[in-house]
Amino acid sequence: MNNKKIVVIGGSAAGAKAAAKARRLDYTAEITIIQKDPDLSMASCGYPYYVGGLFDDRSLLLATPNGTVRDAQFFLKTKNIKALTETEVVGIDRRQKSVLCQSRNKGEEFSLVYDKLIICTGARARQLQVPGHDLAGITNLLSMADTDYLRGVCDNLEAKRAVIIGGGLIGVETCEALVESGLQVTMVEMTPHLLPFLDQQLAMLVEGHIRSKSVEILTNQQVVAFLGEEGKVSGVQLGDGRILTCDLVVVAVGVLANSELAKAAGLAVGELGGITVNEFMQTSDPDIYAAGDCVEVVNLLTGRRVLAPMGDLANLQGRVAGENAALGNSVTFKGTIQTGICKVFDFTAGITGLSEKAAERLGLTGYDSIINAGPDKPGFMGAQLLISKILVDTASGELRGFQCVGPGDVSRQLATMAMAIQGKMTVDQLCCADQPYAPPYSLAIDHCLVSAHLIQNKCKGRIRTVSAEEVLRLSQADRRPFFLDGRGPDEYEQIRLGIGETYIPLGALRSRLAELPQDKDAEIICFCKLSLRGYEAALILAGNGWRNVRVMDGGIAAWPYAREK
Amino acid sequence: MNNKKIVVIGGSAAGAKAAAKARRLDYTAEITIIQKDPDLSMASCGYPYYVGGLFDDRSLLLATPNGTVRDAQFFLKTKNIKALTETEVVGIDRRQKSVLCQSRNKGEEFSLVYDKLIICTGARARQLQVPGHDLAGITNLLSMADTDYLRGVCDNLEAKRAVIIGGGLIGVETCEALVESGLQVTMVEMTPHLLPFLDQQLAMLVEGHIRSKSVEILTNQQVVAFLGEEGKVSGVQLGDGRILTCDLVVVAVGVLANSELAKAAGLAVGELGGITVNEFMQTSDPDIYAAGDCVEVVNLLTGRRVLAPMGDLANLQGRVAGENAALGNSVTFKGTIQTGICKVFDFTAGITGLSEKAAERLGLTGYDSIINAGPDKPGFMGAQLLISKILVDTASGELRGFQCVGPGDVSRQLATMAMAIQGKMTVDQLCCADQPYAPPYSLAIDHCLVSAHLIQNKCKGRIRTVSAEEVLRLSQADRRPFFLDGRGPDEYEQIRLGIGETYIPLGALRSRLAELPQDKDAEIICFCKLSLRGYEAALILAGNGWRNVRVMDGGIAAWPYAREK
Repeated sequence: MNNKKIVVIGGSAAGAKAAAKARRLDYTAEITIIQKDPDLSMASCGYPYYVGGLFDDRSLLLATPNGTVRDAQFFLKTKNIKALTETEVVGIDRRQKSVLCQSRNKGEEFSLVYDKLIICTGARARQLQVPGHDLAGITNLLSMADTDYLRGVCDNLEAKRAVIIGGGLIGVETCEALVESGLQVTMVEMTPHLLPFLDQQLAMLVEGHIRSKSVEILTNQQVVAFLGEEGKVSGVQLGDGRILTCDLVVVAVGVLANSELAKAAGLAVGELGGITVNEFMQTSDPDIYAAGDCVEVVNLLTGRRVLAPMGDLANLQGRVAGENAALGNSVTFKGTIQTGICKVFDFTAGITGLSEKAAERLGLTGYDSIINAGPDKPGFMGAQLLISKILVDTASGELRGFQCVGPGDVSRQLATMAMAIQGKMTVDQLCCADQPYAPPYSLAIDHCLVSAHLIQNKCKGRIRTVSAEEVLRLSQADRRPFFLDGRGPDEYEQIRLGIGETYIPLGALRSRLAELPQDKDAEIICFCKLSLRGYEAALILAGNGWRNVRVMDGGIAAWPYAREK
Repeated sequence: MNNKKIVVIGGSAAGAKAAAKARRLDYTAEITIIQKDPDLSMASCGYPYYVGGLFDDRSLLLATPNGTVRDAQFFLKTKNIKALTETEVVGIDRRQKSVLCQSRNKGEEFSLVYDKLIICTGARARQLQVPGHDLAGITNLLSMADTDYLRGVCDNLEAKRAVIIGGGLIGVETCEALVESGLQVTMVEMTPHLLPFLDQQLAMLVEGHIRSKSVEILTNQQVVAFLGEEGKVSGVQLGDGRILTCDLVVVAVGVLANSELAKAAGLAVGELGGITVNEFMQTSDPDIYAAGDCVEVVNLLTGRRVLAPMGDLANLQGRVAGENAALGNSVTFKGTIQTGICKVFDFTAGITGLSEKAAERLGLTGYDSIINAGPDKPGFMGAQLLISKILVDTASGELRGFQCVGPGDVSRQLATMAMAIQGKMTVDQLCCADQPYAPPYSLAIDHCLVSAHLIQNKCKGRIRTVSAEEVLRLSQADRRPFFLDGRGPDEYEQIRLGIGETYIPLGALRSRLAELPQDKDAEIICFCKLSLRGYEAALILAGNGWRNVRVMDGGIAAWPYAREK
């Protein structure tokens, strides 16, 4: 009997999962994982929380839910999988169906034959190729080694001022970790705002929260050089000439797919540098599968291939690759809608599906969007704010994107809407969705249903909105519109924009219409704390003949600029 | 100009929502709410939390998110809606298109004409018509008056021992409230277990949690009489003759739709006692709509009409009724999947879609299910347990039901799966769903995706399960199966079932196969703490020729019976 030989290159998320799944489906296969690093099955998304001191037991990053460390012994004993750590694959011979391996410690070279090969080589940190990039004190946060280094720096108080370059998910999570460790942090981002996968207004709200933690944020900034003293980093020089003094730099400017090995073996590699796979996770060679951060997958909303280096997708793809390698092509991974979530101090921020910016960049049109600010549950249950932006396809009414930030239960909102996008649900369906409601968990009309109600109203022409950005611009123009703040006196004593607005509480509006511009074509912009009273004020004005009335998107709660008070 | 007259009977969830929506769509309509109670827009789902002392400001139950109490003045000033409180509608004259009203305080009668009428008369508590039912100290928890009474009893320490009759959502929420207030509580339930909308095993896990809070739970029990002293309740007599001494009784045995007014006016009323409406929320009279707890709606999974008296659905239906009354039929409420959630001390429990029990009761077949026990997020982030049961239609692969209980983030799980059911998603789609993942919020493979993986494996015949109930029965039989516990020694020193199981840690199983029954047809049942190691153990045995191997559904974490340790 000739047992099937399955070789898996890479033993982190996708590789370990593929091997384990293959084992469950083929009891007799010879399964080997070849892993460059000393560790296996690392919970890499947990690195920032270990660096930040949320827990001290490093082995938890490598353990099963039952606390068993997933080392080579574990894989052999419980899964009958041979895991060769600190071993690198340096070549794939597709004709011989073998991989050439190099043991790192002993320097040995050896070959392993395969019937099916699964490439899970992951991604590596993109580096900044500017002068001084090799100074000590400059690191990434992508590997266990990076993690150990940063945790050591924090534990031994070896640094006081850190600069984080890159404001994506890893940059922001690293920021929180370093602040929690007592460092003074500056974030440098090349694009106009942090978390560039979010639309500007929501991203700016997150920035405001990060700044409230004494973090300096510099956007639209390039790094031109790292400065050093005695081989150790001492500063970061920006494109505008400014120098940021520091003794630690974390570079988090994205990752590059590790596709070189596949490319050298003649496998197809896409324009973005990821290995090309079909929905079976099969490469251009039918005997070779690939999964995880090294592949390109389809964005289900645009049909385009993307890099989506996320831990959850790596696991799901690994499961598919493992099953197909063991049994022949039988299950599929159709693609991603690019869902992401991240903790940002006391905020959560995330997106599922398309942002408006992404749609514009791709030249997609026919979308409509609206911002919704509101509590996640009733006030008497300790409500926290949620601010979200919903994007729908106007013609079909289908949900295409949902972003959400704030101190509230963003996780439930994003999980709900991610499933709604994947279920191709329309706004009309979402408006009457039957979701779990009890006061400890949501409002009677859950936030994401309110978002659906708002966009439905907008699509039906019942509400015309204007962005906070536009309101700011208009407030600085020569001829300002009439700004109507419909909140009560107590409220505007506490918080107010100060853009020349007039205060008329909604309940008094019908009797105080004389205070409005009497030209019924005058431009009027209504708002309140959240959205509802501004909307109702606009309806009252429309009901009294004013023709040019709009509502500020998201209200004061979603205003990302400085306020008078 | 003749303004449209819209009259709304009832000013709680559905009625207030319908009136407000109608106002937004018709600026000039004359809109009147007629409300029997003194209050309007009560957050009735919040009553238990006020009774339990989570907050002390009663007005929060009546306030907008901005803290404004929604009284008649509020409706008039901000919404231009006339709200007549403490006024009852005693008759509907459909030919004259008018309602006959009776002011409660002054005893006045007057008529109001309508163009469109919206009936939102809600539901009332079902009462137990047994001797002594009118004794003082016996209450429900459905109205603001009930709430004030119970809060008073708790604040003034007027009771020490309470009996709650009925173990549904309100009964369980009331239980927590009274325990939080320092009362000794006994719960009496007529059916075999509390939260009867859950399947037995999950319901028993919740019962175990409630018992751990020193609550006595009596199931399969009928109440035959209330006993009293000097007009005040002093005990509850059960069908088995037992008497429960108490000084407070809360009856929570369900609600009855208030459809008498509609019925008297000749409107169609369904078999379950709810007003019949179409998807426009229109009754058998085209000029009369109805919404909320007083109507029957369609269960979208069974096609049957049901009573679904939930606060969220009342709001959604009210919105539809209000829009259609104002503009003519334009929007629809298609039905419910009967989603429910409830806080139970440190647990959350809920369901979306069908339980196995409900499917069986309706004679529906062709479903498969599996229990999944696992953490909600990584151990290093403070994981909490989730135990869920997924139900799928075997032929189509579509998700039909999902129950979840435990201390973990049940709310996100239910919200996710509720949307997946409504999006008609299949198990294969769920297996690769792109959900928001970061360690503070979920596992890399979220619990509900793991549930999909498990049921996929089961549907493909890769895993055969046996329920805990069956294991208990088999463990007491003359010829016991071989029970294999695949956990490590540390684990079974802490927790063990004690049903005659043999302990062989999964990692040692391949080398200790000699300790198993050598008859390859012997009945073997594997389990572990959760599910995975039991499943892998079964695969190892199958790989070595054993033909009659099953895995215990949900593992030890979902075992609802007494354990040895």
